[in-house]
Amino acid sequence: MIETEVVMRKKPRLRKSILVEGLPGLGLVGKLAVDHMIRELDAKPFGDLYSPHFPPQVNMVGNGGVELPHDTFYYWKGKKINIVFVAGDYQANTPFGHYEIADAVLDLAESMHVKTIYTLGGYGVGYLSKNPKVFGAVTNPKLKKKFEERGVLFDRRGGIVGAAGLLIGLGMLRDIDGVCLMGETHGQIIDARAAKAVLTVLTSILKLNVDTKELDKRAKQVEDALEKKKEEVESPKPKEEFNPQYIR
Amino acid sequence: MIETEVVMRKKPRLRKSILVEGLPGLGLVGKLAVDHMIRELDAKPFGDLYSPHFPPQVNMVGNGGVELPHDTFYYWKGKKINIVFVAGDYQANTPFGHYEIADAVLDLAESMHVKTIYTLGGYGVGYLSKNPKVFGAVTNPKLKKKFEERGVLFDRRGGIVGAAGLLIGLGMLRDIDGVCLMGETHGQIIDARAAKAVLTVLTSILKLNVDTKELDKRAKQVEDALEKKKEEVESPKPKEEFNPQYIR
Amino acid sequence: MIETEVVMRKKPRLRKSILVEGLPGLGLVGKLAVDHMIRELDAKPFGDLYSPHFPPQVNMVGNGGVELPHDTFYYWKGKKINIVFVAGDYQANTPFGHYEIADAVLDLAESMHVKTIYTLGGYGVGYLSKNPKVFGAVTNPKLKKKFEERGVLFDRRGGIVGAAGLLIGLGMLRDIDGVCLMGETHGQIIDARAAKAVLTVLTSILKLNVDTKELDKRAKQVEDALEKKKEEVESPKPKEEFNPQYIR
Amino acid sequence: MIETEVVMRKKPRLRKSILVEGLPGLGLVGKLAVDHMIRELDAKPFGDLYSPHFPPQVNMVGNGGVELPHDTFYYWKGKKINIVFVAGDYQANTPFGHYEIADAVLDLAESMHVKTIYTLGGYGVGYLSKNPKVFGAVTNPKLKKKFEERGVLFDRRGGIVGAAGLLIGLGMLRDIDGVCLMGETHGQIIDARAAKAVLTVLTSILKLNVDTKELDKRAKQVEDALEKKKEEVESPKPKEEFNPQYIR
Repeated sequence: MIETEVVMRKKPRLRKSILVEGLPGLGLVGKLAVDHMIRELDAKPFGDLYSPHFPPQVNMVGNGGVELPHDTFYYWKGKKINIVFVAGDYQANTPFGHYEIADAVLDLAESMHVKTIYTLGGYGVGYLSKNPKVFGAVTNPKLKKKFEERGVLFDRRGGIVGAAGLLIGLGMLRDIDGVCLMGETHGQIIDARAAKAVLTVLTSILKLNVDTKELDKRAKQVEDALEKKKEEVESPKPKEEFNPQYIR
Repeated sequence: MIETEVVMRKKPRLRKSILVEGLPGLGLVGKLAVDHMIRELDAKPFGDLYSPHFPPQVNMVGNGGVELPHDTFYYWKGKKINIVFVAGDYQANTPFGHYEIADAVLDLAESMHVKTIYTLGGYGVGYLSKNPKVFGAVTNPKLKKKFEERGVLFDRRGGIVGAAGLLIGLGMLRDIDGVCLMGETHGQIIDARAAKAVLTVLTSILKLNVDTKELDKRAKQVEDALEKKKEEVESPKPKEEFNPQYIR
Repeated sequence: MIETEVVMRKKPRLRKSILVEGLPGLGLVGKLAVDHMIRELDAKPFGDLYSPHFPPQVNMVGNGGVELPHDTFYYWKGKKINIVFVAGDYQANTPFGHYEIADAVLDLAESMHVKTIYTLGGYGVGYLSKNPKVFGAVTNPKLKKKFEERGVLFDRRGGIVGAAGLLIGLGMLRDIDGVCLMGETHGQIIDARAAKAVLTVLTSILKLNVDTKELDKRAKQVEDALEKKKEEVESPKPKEEFNPQYIR
Repeated sequence: MIETEVVMRKKPRLRKSILVEGLPGLGLVGKLAVDHMIRELDAKPFGDLYSPHFPPQVNMVGNGGVELPHDTFYYWKGKKINIVFVAGDYQANTPFGHYEIADAVLDLAESMHVKTIYTLGGYGVGYLSKNPKVFGAVTNPKLKKKFEERGVLFDRRGGIVGAAGLLIGLGMLRDIDGVCLMGETHGQIIDARAAKAVLTVLTSILKLNVDTKELDKRAKQVEDALEKKKEEVESPKPKEEFNPQYIR
């Protein structure tokens, strides 16, 4: 494999659709949001993207099975809207690879009549917020209004790195509209709360009914773990501890 | 996008033209000079160069809009001369990428009947000069005389790295004449004065009337800022300062 | 040479065959096992794989001869089974190169009607075991049972990096079954004992009779050398030693 | 330019020829020897090799002229032998680039009916020898004898990196015989004496009459400079020196 390839499991017929991307990035915000949507909507996988710009290995999954690094396309047919999702655990391992992979995703998007691309991600601020803001970026100014009505802020500067940025940027060159929604997030901590914030905006725009209880639970788990760690740091166990391996 | 691409907005008809390049480099000398010429001559953008050897991201511009990294081509039709400009914020992020991008620029130049390429840049000397010299390099010895008459020195050795060098170097292989003009500059400090020096030579050669007031202003701003910084370094605020975060 | 190439010495006709790979990796487990099989079965070399993703050099072999970095294909025709081996001293020097080389090996495998790929390697645990376990990974769950019957464990997680992983991973996309057998090993020490463990499983599955005396000898040599080193470390020679260069 | 290219100035007709390579490497041994041969035989340049795997720049040569990084092909027609030389200041800046460039040189060699390739270089030993040995490596054992008769040793192990190695290694795959001659050398010091040793063997084999006075002179210069530096290190100038910039 010397080029990025999309291997189709089946080819759903969608006359018109939107693309929603959520791959690993800051706070895993985009990935959490999209994986959650796929689960809640019960979207169906239909294709996989493999690339020589992913790590050169397979991963053992614990039962003897292996997986070649890949991202996966899912589709969901609604009454008024069809969605193609791009999800997975991988982004390219080189700058050039990012371009090649975004190109392959856009080729697929065009073949499935995608009119608008929504990419989801985090906007790193260095702290965890209880009520994360949602920042937006669009490739067509007409798209801003309905997001602003839902509280999305369009005042940021700086780069949107990787698939979330390139898909809407390279999409412009193919006349596909693009929106990137970014949840305010610490950056280095998994942030389900920011994922929920982003998801809430997107589902409102798309008029979808997506339960977010699982994301709330996940956010709570991470916060409890952080809280516990904080306590340990502030009141460390005494060094006389019987089990010398206790403090790790 | 797996190859550098030029996307045309429109294709101006120019029977004969010259190319003037000014992309980021030492002291931003070339970029300042060319951006200034484009503004003063009111040259029109007609194409954009995108490349997988640019950073894999889009940049938010502050109002919700985004830009995919690119450089831009402009044209200006004069009475005796037509100019194609290459300007922008990007150079390739790999050695190989520099060659690929220079190739794409030269393909466009040939298609627009470019006979001579002028590349502008800085020549780093480690200090800021009040009256920066202009150094030159040519791919055809016949070109030297008229520059020497305007005080350009042709006595330097060393490399001209990136687009400023490769465009004239690879241009040679396509029988396109090339001139590189370099303003004597510190290297790490934005240098509008060196940009003006280079611009003055070029506009004299091309018999163009280009006002340089804006460059003078810019040079003054940088010099004032440096002067202020120098004062702070020489007479630092006392450490007893009430606001401990004052000196950053 | 700008692409990986397989140069055939001759093309053996094999109606149906399996591929067995053992290239350098953790503890050289896979390489030791496969080199040993090739020697004991007297398999015949029939092709060489060269790649621009191998080091850019030739190696002098001591008698004035040189070798271009390459891996070698061998074949062995048995009564019930034909084997194609991939052996050698090289793996790719870039992530991308690993994909390109695995692709070239799979092209050859397909052209030789390979139905199943066995890749051999080490599973690093940080210590040397007297009775190394054998861990397995398969691309088709049906393959597990006969390995489990021979004590192979299918409970690991983590990556199988390089040819051992990619050949079975990319093989999946070509509908070729894949099995990776990994001997429990230290990781940084040549481990003939783990190689023997892996080999014993494979030859039992393939119903081959392969003498392992040489691997036992090799394991003994490494263990003696380690033992000696350990003694030196525990009882270092006195610093009053006459020859100051003795301890190196 | 996205691929290595050879640009011909003219195409000499040579029915049969040999190729002699000497590009920068250990002690500049190969480069010194080949540049010297070209000068003494008055060989004529006929082509240039450019590559995107050379540095992305042009070099100012001091009189206003510039050069794009390249290596150069020369030819010399003798009574009994025709020689094609590859000389210059550049080798590839990536492992992959080395393969691509060697390929381009071999394409040219084949088109000029080259039957044997001689590559010249240094063999690093960490000291400067007064009477440097010459080590050899061949791709065809028949070639050894006549070199052994001239004192060349064929007992080394280890890699021959870059063009000197790849040209004979990849040449093998095209059925072109190859010989590498390496002068025993320090490695980090320019070594005209090792170059002369290598040259003496090659000219004897090729029955050429090449004066080596210039190489003797060059060797003497470097040795005098080293001697002087050694004295300075052993008897450093007192720190009371009037001119504080004297010792650089």
